[in-house]
Amino acid sequence: MGYQEFTIEGRNAVIEAYRSGKPIDKIFILDGCQDGPIMTIKREAKKHDTLVKFVTKERLDQMSETGKHQGVIAYAAAYEYAEVEDILQAAREKNEPPFIFLLDNIEDPHNLGAIIRTANLAGAHGVIIPKNRAAGLTATVARTSAGALNYTPVAKVTNLAKTIEDLKKEGLWFVCADMGGTTMYNLDLKGAIGLVIGNEGEGVGRLVKEKCDMVASIPMKGDIDSLNASVAAGVLAYEIVRQRLQ
Amino acid sequence: MGYQEFTIEGRNAVIEAYRSGKPIDKIFILDGCQDGPIMTIKREAKKHDTLVKFVTKERLDQMSETGKHQGVIAYAAAYEYAEVEDILQAAREKNEPPFIFLLDNIEDPHNLGAIIRTANLAGAHGVIIPKNRAAGLTATVARTSAGALNYTPVAKVTNLAKTIEDLKKEGLWFVCADMGGTTMYNLDLKGAIGLVIGNEGEGVGRLVKEKCDMVASIPMKGDIDSLNASVAAGVLAYEIVRQRLQ
Repeated sequence: MGYQEFTIEGRNAVIEAYRSGKPIDKIFILDGCQDGPIMTIKREAKKHDTLVKFVTKERLDQMSETGKHQGVIAYAAAYEYAEVEDILQAAREKNEPPFIFLLDNIEDPHNLGAIIRTANLAGAHGVIIPKNRAAGLTATVARTSAGALNYTPVAKVTNLAKTIEDLKKEGLWFVCADMGGTTMYNLDLKGAIGLVIGNEGEGVGRLVKEKCDMVASIPMKGDIDSLNASVAAGVLAYEIVRQRLQ
Repeated sequence: MGYQEFTIEGRNAVIEAYRSGKPIDKIFILDGCQDGPIMTIKREAKKHDTLVKFVTKERLDQMSETGKHQGVIAYAAAYEYAEVEDILQAAREKNEPPFIFLLDNIEDPHNLGAIIRTANLAGAHGVIIPKNRAAGLTATVARTSAGALNYTPVAKVTNLAKTIEDLKKEGLWFVCADMGGTTMYNLDLKGAIGLVIGNEGEGVGRLVKEKCDMVASIPMKGDIDSLNASVAAGVLAYEIVRQRLQ
């Protein structure tokens, strides 16, 4: 499977991409455009939960590779997202308690790739990312994942808080990384677990944090605020690995 | 203190920069150029251990911002490197056994910045990098270090293996990260320690590895080869933190 982000330009091409089931990450539409084909595209975008941005003609011209965007450019990633159920199934097949990473709006594709790489090596069964705002599975992510995207399923969900609720019914406990929590060494991180990693600047969102059973803190001895998001994810993931190995 | 990489172009400007003691990371000289001023620059470069690259006129023209490079462009970082002794002194002042990161040719400035950030937060007293080949302290490194470069001293040494030898006399033990070593949880990582992190692609060099007292492995459950270098550094550093906290 190849992982690359590619653009689809023009009305018919974008409608056709939707109809053939291509996973489209993001759509840029000329602001104010209201005609039939554009309305069809907006409907499809809504149906598929695609992020839609309304932009100026200059912006579209700048993004366009063909010069023939007709007021619409779609970004598609050549990656088929997994379902959350696939991740649970992977855990069942290995006869292991589920270990899932949930990323609350990681924005930097290098961080996203490095975290998927870590998830793979730490033995997590999958990664869940939210549909909007966060970085999607672009070519940069695939490259920085060092091949992990070939093995570790990534699911995209509309509402991370809701997904946490659903997964609690499957017996998972959730731990999020944040300051002011319990030092991670003092938490019981064995068993079925979801590790929630927050956004680079803002940390874990309030709604998501409220759903978590535990807040884990990495001991900080230094002068600055926080670790890089992918380093923090690695440090926490390996505390889980250590406890599971005991 | 500001951290940015800037270029110095032209023969007199570069000679002047050396004479005024500016820290120059790298010099690009027109291949085949042998006249007096260029010979002076080469002598200064040798004296200051600057990395010298001989390039074509096209390459220089491309790199030049002023268009007047006269066959030589220098890259300088506005950062004053610390001495290894400063790092030991920092540990003494805190009354702690030294904890030092040694980076064996980290090439990606994002990794270098993230590792300096981790070193700061894990309570390491400093970071040692080799003079040649590796990434220097550029603006990108400063940015990705998230301010840590303001607090954590970074020293640059000619020969990492030799530095390890010297530091052993100060009572430090050295652990390097590599596959096929002892699982990190089973090593005693307390006390005065140097953590050696290898290059992104090749790992720790043979000569440096031979000087290490311990080889630590991070447990790998996945399908791919290795963690991102800055994540691996974080995971190992925090195993050291965990053991020190006990």
